Amino acid sequence: MNDLPEVLDINTIARTRLFHIESVDLMFGNGQYAQFERFMGEGSGSVLVIPMPDPQHLLLLREYAVGYERYELGFVKGRIDPGESPRDAALREMREEIGYAAHEIVELAAVGLTPAYSNYRTMIFLARGLYPDPLSGDEPEPLETMGWPLRQLDQLRGRDDFTDARSLLATYLVDDYVRAEK
Amino acid sequence: MNDLPEVLDINTIARTRLFHIESVDLMFGNGQYAQFERFMGEGSGSVLVIPMPDPQHLLLLREYAVGYERYELGFVKGRIDPGESPRDAALREMREEIGYAAHEIVELAAVGLTPAYSNYRTMIFLARGLYPDPLSGDEPEPLETMGWPLRQLDQLRGRDDFTDARSLLATYLVDDYVRAEK
Repeated sequence: MNDLPEVLDINTIARTRLFHIESVDLMFGNGQYAQFERFMGEGSGSVLVIPMPDPQHLLLLREYAVGYERYELGFVKGRIDPGESPRDAALREMREEIGYAAHEIVELAAVGLTPAYSNYRTMIFLARGLYPDPLSGDEPEPLETMGWPLRQLDQLRGRDDFTDARSLLATYLVDDYVRAEK
Repeated sequence: MNDLPEVLDINTIARTRLFHIESVDLMFGNGQYAQFERFMGEGSGSVLVIPMPDPQHLLLLREYAVGYERYELGFVKGRIDPGESPRDAALREMREEIGYAAHEIVELAAVGLTPAYSNYRTMIFLARGLYPDPLSGDEPEPLETMGWPLRQLDQLRGRDDFTDARSLLATYLVDDYVRAEK
């Protein structure tokens, strides 16, 4: 197995409100020098929450995605605030985006977006035992929600407006989790 | 359903060798103004390829991931070059990273990294019928490869060094595809 490359230098080469880009000078174990770029998340990463309003349904959001300039279906998502636990962030984002809190929050996975270029991490949660407890968020418009049958996840995965790799992965994780309970 | 917001203005606010960040001024259907940031991929996106050296195994790579400053297991990955088709990019990356080409390349999915913040897209392919056909790439060190049994994907998904959401998703997609053939 290769040894870890030595980090010779790290420099911030761009910083905006949301993004922070670094160049990293590296010396690999074979003596090869390389300079890589990476974008660094501010804070502690993000959460994705799959709300289950009942044992047969997931709750989806329809939200404007500026990367594609179109609406996308997905789950509750948001950043973890400074000092906030991932679980608290999951609850807060649910209250802000769908107006519900949950009695049960289960961690399904912690994933990276693209470890080759970024330190971004997302913790994926399942939320059950929902009850109304709205909190005002910073969304520019109210988010539309849609119940989706757990038995029709294949159709959801085939949709042109359900393309976030984390959301697609989440449908498999929740399916595995619910099956394992039976 | 909400109408698409009107894009009032788009400005490049940072550009590095790999990354390009824009701010986008938007007017939502309800009259609410918002300014979002997004990072834009250069070119046509990227490919992820799952090589199957035989019907019972996947081929993994162990590659340095500068986002986490550690080695990660994953599949063949790379950018689509200008003018190159996704399928050609998949073949080229396989030849560069593992030294094999493939008689059969199947598209499994096209996914986004984070449509809320980026236009990055990855096409996920399955490659079978491998044969040696190496091509010299730009890796700073030779990549280690590892065969992984298709029947032990659960163990792979549970590893601390296999965390890219696209790689995790790919294990489910290949499993679905192979099962559907039976």
